[in-house]
Amino acid sequence: RIDGDRLWDSLMEMAKIGPGVRGGNNRQTLTDEDAEGRKLFQKWCEDAGMTMGVDQMGTMFFRREGTDPDALPVYVGSHLDTQPTGGKYDGVLGVLGALEVVRTLNDLNIKTKHPIVVTNWTNEEGTRFAPAMLASGVFAGMHEQDWAYARQDHEGKNFGDELKRIGWLGEEETGARKMHAFFELHIEQGPILEAENKDIGVVTHGQGLWWLQVTLTGKDAHTGSTPMPMRRNAGLGMARITELVHEIAMSFQPNAVGAIGHCDVYPNSRNVIPGKVVFTIDFRSPDLEILDGMKARLEAEAPAIAKDLGLEIEIEATGHFDPVTFDENCVKAVRDAAERLGYSHRDIVSGAGHDACWINRVAPTSMVMCPCVDGLSHNEDEEISPEWARAGTDVLFHAVVETAEI
Amino acid sequence: RIDGDRLWDSLMEMAKIGPGVRGGNNRQTLTDEDAEGRKLFQKWCEDAGMTMGVDQMGTMFFRREGTDPDALPVYVGSHLDTQPTGGKYDGVLGVLGALEVVRTLNDLNIKTKHPIVVTNWTNEEGTRFAPAMLASGVFAGMHEQDWAYARQDHEGKNFGDELKRIGWLGEEETGARKMHAFFELHIEQGPILEAENKDIGVVTHGQGLWWLQVTLTGKDAHTGSTPMPMRRNAGLGMARITELVHEIAMSFQPNAVGAIGHCDVYPNSRNVIPGKVVFTIDFRSPDLEILDGMKARLEAEAPAIAKDLGLEIEIEATGHFDPVTFDENCVKAVRDAAERLGYSHRDIVSGAGHDACWINRVAPTSMVMCPCVDGLSHNEDEEISPEWARAGTDVLFHAVVETAEI
Ligand SMILES: NC(=O)NCCC(=O)O
Ligand SMILES: NC(=O)NCCC(=O)O
Repeated sequence: RIDGDRLWDSLMEMAKIGPGVRGGNNRQTLTDEDAEGRKLFQKWCEDAGMTMGVDQMGTMFFRREGTDPDALPVYVGSHLDTQPTGGKYDGVLGVLGALEVVRTLNDLNIKTKHPIVVTNWTNEEGTRFAPAMLASGVFAGMHEQDWAYARQDHEGKNFGDELKRIGWLGEEETGARKMHAFFELHIEQGPILEAENKDIGVVTHGQGLWWLQVTLTGKDAHTGSTPMPMRRNAGLGMARITELVHEIAMSFQPNAVGAIGHCDVYPNSRNVIPGKVVFTIDFRSPDLEILDGMKARLEAEAPAIAKDLGLEIEIEATGHFDPVTFDENCVKAVRDAAERLGYSHRDIVSGAGHDACWINRVAPTSMVMCPCVDGLSHNEDEEISPEWARAGTDVLFHAVVETAEI
Repeated sequence: RIDGDRLWDSLMEMAKIGPGVRGGNNRQTLTDEDAEGRKLFQKWCEDAGMTMGVDQMGTMFFRREGTDPDALPVYVGSHLDTQPTGGKYDGVLGVLGALEVVRTLNDLNIKTKHPIVVTNWTNEEGTRFAPAMLASGVFAGMHEQDWAYARQDHEGKNFGDELKRIGWLGEEETGARKMHAFFELHIEQGPILEAENKDIGVVTHGQGLWWLQVTLTGKDAHTGSTPMPMRRNAGLGMARITELVHEIAMSFQPNAVGAIGHCDVYPNSRNVIPGKVVFTIDFRSPDLEILDGMKARLEAEAPAIAKDLGLEIEIEATGHFDPVTFDENCVKAVRDAAERLGYSHRDIVSGAGHDACWINRVAPTSMVMCPCVDGLSHNEDEEISPEWARAGTDVLFHAVVETAEI
């Protein structure tokens, strides 16, 4: 069994870096706070006897040697970056849980046949630079690295420059590493486990996702003196497409979700009819047909909404992955571990995207989930209990050790 | 007749201060650019032999003496502040047109019985600090000055501090001045004069306005893993209220307008359901009953929209004025001037709010309007022809001189 107190202390220590305004965290990718978090994590990993590699996407890999020089490593980890108003556990639990796996192996003086590599993937959240899971996506060959470098944040800064600026541009070729398996522990970010009073989610599948960015262009004009029929109100167009997105998602509910999370309104002035809006749509489903159907319906119906209001419309896909089926053996390793340890568990579909979803394409992969209070995540009030963190990390430990072989 | 070329040169010179990105202006109130524009205007007015007074709201008054020491001055002016993506003429034409009136009087060596005071009212636009026409509103006794000082911009800076910071906090008690009359020249900011090929709008009335600020509070949560029925999506609430505002305005059209110009979405992240939105509503009508009816309908129906989505709602009135009827004699002075000069004209209702709307409460007031291309304003592409500017300023000159008596 792992040391739950040590794990919790490390979680609380990391949460001091990039504090939020309401008790959560704002440690967005490639900010100074991200760099500071990485430094602390590096120190902890090196103190645990591991050696660091960093790839050209800034992903950190800490290796604990195995006994068989020819055996591929078992990878385990998640991400340290957070949402702008994020919680203390989303991603962080999976990284520090992986570190706790190695610390426990050290305590017990256990040698595994396969090396173990603890990983912090760069830019999982995708808020600052879309798409999400950017570094694991490049690692898995889903994106070109140069394309990833060119992703821009809201202020026009690009990923490549910011990675260099914070000092975490590594030399290793991205994706060159070969894996025996990959495991990721993560909080559920949904309400199911808590509602059913289960300690552990055995993640068998992941929802697929389409991220779209919509630009509506009308004409900014005076709110007082422009007659209603002469208006080309981009804000009204956004309102109607927001309703359309909701309708589409509701029509497939509970097998789909959809929402608009981000918008920019121009010029955003009380007495100016918005001449332009740019906003993002997030559609998800565990069913490929539904997922693609939602996007198709949006693309079919939104242009008519725009036309009706005299607006021009552009729809760009900024993120995508198909629904994921995790590796049978890895899933079994997680389920068996939960069973063996006597934790209550159920199979579950991940509602969120995870680095594991991309890595599953290049290596046998699965995930362990633990509950979170009220299913709340991407919110500073995100909360878990130390017991949940301990149980999830115990299961992670056993699945990893089982797969890495003693 | 005034000197149209000199007027146009001054307009182009002023437009160099706080240039926009597309040929217009961004010279928002109490910014460094506003201070620079004020300096240039001060120099021009002093070169024209006038002496300056500045009141505690930062409004600038330049006086040309009259021949009768007991006669109250005729005031004439508008505002130099602009929208964030504003045009070169909205407000500026009325200020520099007033200066041109004095320059022409000087050229012709005309002495008037009443002094003439050229005025630049502070914060007419109301974009940075709501409400609009803030300084003229305090001047007319509609707002307390301390309340005006406490108005905050988007970054939390307040009006009083910013006025001091740019060095234009004057000593004169606001509203202490007494006026014989007030005239304001302004571009129409609507399509009527151009469509009917009229040189001059004789402004008989002004629309009334309600500005509301709505705050919807839900819960920020993960877009992927939060089931649809558990969501409290503040962005969806904003969309529905945007549609409601449009519906309300359309039901009274052409006697009403309504739109949402500004919104802030929190945390504004692609994969977070918006937990909070703050947005502004702008309702206007020349008919008091319609105007108040629109606000009442919004206040009656918006809470049900919020409740249905599990949102909390707060509605705050941030700006208001009743429809305005301008002074009969001043209106006649404008109409007679246009007639005498041979310009085509029609009576018109102002769609926008103007400083003249407040000053009308404390002094006989009216306005002169000239056309603008496509009725477009609050847009960097706002355009007028030098001929329109000249005609409007000619009429202003005659109305002012007639009222100030030779
Ligand atoms: N786990 C998580 O929140 N990942 C961010 C990508 C997503 O929105 O699913
Ligand atoms: N004229 C003008 O645009 N004034 C600003 C206040 C308003 O929105 O009407």
